[in-house]
Amino acid sequence: MTKELVFGHQNPDTDAIAAAIALAYLEKQDGYETEAVALGPVNPETQFVLDYFGVQAPRVVNHAQPETDQVMLVDHNEPQQSIADIAELKVTHVVDHHRISGFNTAQPLYYRAAPYGCCSTIITQMYSEEGVTIPKEIAGLMMSAIISDTLLLKSPTTTDVDRDALQALAEIADVDNYEDYGIQMLKAGTNVAAKSAQE
Amino acid sequence: MTKELVFGHQNPDTDAIAAAIALAYLEKQDGYETEAVALGPVNPETQFVLDYFGVQAPRVVNHAQPETDQVMLVDHNEPQQSIADIAELKVTHVVDHHRISGFNTAQPLYYRAAPYGCCSTIITQMYSEEGVTIPKEIAGLMMSAIISDTLLLKSPTTTDVDRDALQALAEIADVDNYEDYGIQMLKAGTNVAAKSAQE
Ligand SMILES: [Mn+2]
Ligand SMILES: [Mn+2]
Ligand SMILES: [Mn+2]
Ligand SMILES: [Mn+2]
Repeated sequence: MTKELVFGHQNPDTDAIAAAIALAYLEKQDGYETEAVALGPVNPETQFVLDYFGVQAPRVVNHAQPETDQVMLVDHNEPQQSIADIAELKVTHVVDHHRISGFNTAQPLYYRAAPYGCCSTIITQMYSEEGVTIPKEIAGLMMSAIISDTLLLKSPTTTDVDRDALQALAEIADVDNYEDYGIQMLKAGTNVAAKSAQE
Repeated sequence: MTKELVFGHQNPDTDAIAAAIALAYLEKQDGYETEAVALGPVNPETQFVLDYFGVQAPRVVNHAQPETDQVMLVDHNEPQQSIADIAELKVTHVVDHHRISGFNTAQPLYYRAAPYGCCSTIITQMYSEEGVTIPKEIAGLMMSAIISDTLLLKSPTTTDVDRDALQALAEIADVDNYEDYGIQMLKAGTNVAAKSAQE
């Protein structure tokens, strides 16, 4: 089986990182040889999340070749938001919650999109459909992604599916009060950004 | 709720018709006000299928407006294979098993694609995921679509998922020997076509 890189968009946010890690794990259960990577360093909010759940930041890559020419995209589909050599690669899977724009393939593929507030919400559904248990730390990452993308379920893009997924993930991640956690997490993003601006 | 038309590609084949009827029914259970239509008259093979399972051919339409401006596409995504006024419509759902080409949206949507031999195979999965019972006649149509698209599971595009779906659908449709049925069905397509060519 060909190795496949799994990644979110450039300038990754928490959803881009969480969704990549979560999809890479899920597809590994289906027999794919996947590795979650990132198209840039993680931001302070995501670093807080990774530290909290004891997960290492994905390796940063700029090109997929010559490592591999098969990739899976999460949290984006537009080529200009993707990896530098996207035009030369075969995209085998996409999971996304954005409009579709400029995305063309030569071959049929797996494409899973829904108009939810967060890509990790769709991946949470996929775990459930495939009967795969979500590891505790991956539940923590996806829970954080939903909090991040929906601003604690307050953004107008929030759906009931996001609400239900957040509840379920918080339970698996063993986070008693996701509001308290979420405020800490969102603050971690802003505080550090503010600090480095002052320095 | 806005009425939505559900249809397959121009010059509809059995999968385009079956998938439209099956998705329209499934989304109705989710509260959408759907109607399956067709972008052209059904071919002799599909007419055999509809007669066999006692289903009426969908109404033929050329434009969605002014009836509605919301649509769901099955068995295609490329605008040039779609309804005449596709550029002015909002596509809310796509279920397809082809490459993605020239398909762009202004808004997020439901998009479900997989590299299987038949679109009806994906819709069979969706019924199962959503826990919706497939009505007997819709199972018959989707079974026929899989036989049609995969030439009785012999085409190189056939996957194990198609094989499993065909078995399950034949049982629901109460078809004891789907090979016998399939040969009759494929013959109905060729015979009538041959006959009208001679006339
Ligand atoms: Mn994002
Ligand atoms: Mn996102
Ligand atoms: Mn077709
Ligand atoms: Mn088809």
